[in-house]
Amino acid sequence: MDEELINLKPVYWDDEKDCLIILDQRKLPRSEEWLEIRTLSELEDAIRSLAIRGAPLLGIASAYGVYLGIRDYKGDEPGFKKELNRIISRIAATRPTAINLFSTLRRAQEVGRFVDRFDVEYIKIKLLALGNRILSEEEERSCAISRNGADILEANVRIITHCNTGALAAVGLGTALGIIYEAYQRGYVEEVFVDETRPLLQGARLTTWELKRWGIPFRLIVDGAAPYVMQKNMADIVLVGADRIVRNGDVANKIGTYSLAVAAKRHRIPFIVAAPTSSFDLSILEGADIPIEERSDDEITRFCEKEVAPEDVKTFNPAFDITPAELITAIVTERGVIENPDKYKIADHISGSLSADYDVLL
Amino acid sequence: MDEELINLKPVYWDDEKDCLIILDQRKLPRSEEWLEIRTLSELEDAIRSLAIRGAPLLGIASAYGVYLGIRDYKGDEPGFKKELNRIISRIAATRPTAINLFSTLRRAQEVGRFVDRFDVEYIKIKLLALGNRILSEEEERSCAISRNGADILEANVRIITHCNTGALAAVGLGTALGIIYEAYQRGYVEEVFVDETRPLLQGARLTTWELKRWGIPFRLIVDGAAPYVMQKNMADIVLVGADRIVRNGDVANKIGTYSLAVAAKRHRIPFIVAAPTSSFDLSILEGADIPIEERSDDEITRFCEKEVAPEDVKTFNPAFDITPAELITAIVTERGVIENPDKYKIADHISGSLSADYDVLL
Repeated sequence: MDEELINLKPVYWDDEKDCLIILDQRKLPRSEEWLEIRTLSELEDAIRSLAIRGAPLLGIASAYGVYLGIRDYKGDEPGFKKELNRIISRIAATRPTAINLFSTLRRAQEVGRFVDRFDVEYIKIKLLALGNRILSEEEERSCAISRNGADILEANVRIITHCNTGALAAVGLGTALGIIYEAYQRGYVEEVFVDETRPLLQGARLTTWELKRWGIPFRLIVDGAAPYVMQKNMADIVLVGADRIVRNGDVANKIGTYSLAVAAKRHRIPFIVAAPTSSFDLSILEGADIPIEERSDDEITRFCEKEVAPEDVKTFNPAFDITPAELITAIVTERGVIENPDKYKIADHISGSLSADYDVLL
Repeated sequence: MDEELINLKPVYWDDEKDCLIILDQRKLPRSEEWLEIRTLSELEDAIRSLAIRGAPLLGIASAYGVYLGIRDYKGDEPGFKKELNRIISRIAATRPTAINLFSTLRRAQEVGRFVDRFDVEYIKIKLLALGNRILSEEEERSCAISRNGADILEANVRIITHCNTGALAAVGLGTALGIIYEAYQRGYVEEVFVDETRPLLQGARLTTWELKRWGIPFRLIVDGAAPYVMQKNMADIVLVGADRIVRNGDVANKIGTYSLAVAAKRHRIPFIVAAPTSSFDLSILEGADIPIEERSDDEITRFCEKEVAPEDVKTFNPAFDITPAELITAIVTERGVIENPDKYKIADHISGSLSADYDVLL
């Protein structure tokens, strides 16, 4: 396997150009265009328009975004904290559901507090370092998730997956897609069914692109066909990512995920969620309390610049849904596997990670 | 209500032009173009490319197709039967799942048999009359289905529907959409959630167009969002059509229907199927034996002439799925309502209709 194939970096800091480089995911698969992001506004646009997406990637990008916002600050220390809070609020307002964005911003805020003890320029450097650090943390997590997940799969597995959970979403090999890659390397994977994932077709555009690079056999399906694939006994497992996992094990993920979980339950097919511990939010007890982003009508009513519905049609366009823990067979993280997740197992699994998160000035 | 609004005829025979007129459903909602169909080949193309679609409409169109194929026949009676069979085989090969097409062709074959007793020109006239007759039968059925279905709904109902089941699918007011129209006239309907219905977007393009004409409040959703709508307690009922209903009550309908039925069961939301008795096929015992059409990759990989997936991506593209009777709360036909359908109730409900079907030379 070509090294390049397993080392796709859809986001990284370019020291020479002194800017953030991101692969424009809106243009895939038709063209591979790389954006140079030099300002906070450019980053906000890239996040809102989904040029960059995926919970772990949003966690990485938002750290760099803080640095881009603050790097030209020339004032004093008290002003620095105020400015930092303003920047953090702006980034926090871009997308509400993926928790990684917020946990990164909390870490950035912690770093900012030390401006009293050090000085402005030193803290700026530490904020850039935070981006690099979260990037490498997520890369390591991805590898561990991939191994841990592959360990629970068996030979000739036929997998249904949803949205995009590869390197494009999470660096490294990804989360759910990383498991598929690792399992394929071990010779386990017979076929992957890729949900196209309406409205923005992350499955059709991005997951197929990654699977094709890797040479993994797959077929693309419309989202509504996945339960039929189960009914026809063509799939053994459902494997998805997560945008936020809360205390009781409920999972927010791309719209359409809940539908898969309900059908998997009926067909007694394991429903597996793969996510780094950075996607857990222990401040919320239940999925119903996770804020769900509702996006614009034209994501559904327009397609490739063309209207597909009559004019002025109203939509209901939640970007995510909630899968209750009771439908989840297991959650795979970089630390291991939580079977039949509940609040006790989640608390056990996650305990200790928060302190590490705030170990900010290493 | 404007008479025109409840009298959309997406297919009819034009005596003056001496051809079949169909509304080109591929072009909706952006333009209303009417096609003049003068040959069997043109009709085959119109059916295969979904310019005309919907189980009852296919039943009507195929009758006219037989006439278009045979009308220039100049030979003797034995040759007539052979030619008629050839035409019937061609039409039967256009689309495999909707039973209406086949029941029409059986009726046309019955008419053809009488060529021994009458003569070729008389039988041609009777074949054209068969088209007109099936059209008016379906119009009457649609009205009765609409009333029967509205009778079991209650005030302030919020409905999820899938694909297109209006006049565009079934003449008259349609099947499931006809019920929605009738219920709306009675003041029952609070809101309709319209599944966009991938891959061909019959919901986004056609159902919204019909609901908008009628002024019924609705919101368009991606197919994967419907279970989330149920989870959020935003819908009270699921109402769909059928392409074929078999002896035990299993239903073939547009891909994505089964997914809705599974989710409705979990949320204890009634799942109602609306179809004329002409969509029943008592020759098949179980849904698993219904032939399911698989359509081309490019319905999923291309959109408005643009590639949305990488090149040469393989798909699995079944046009329909099977909903087992156990998930169906009721089937509404022009004769009434079959609650918790099973083979005994279906046999009771349908008995007697077959003889009427073959009463061909009235």
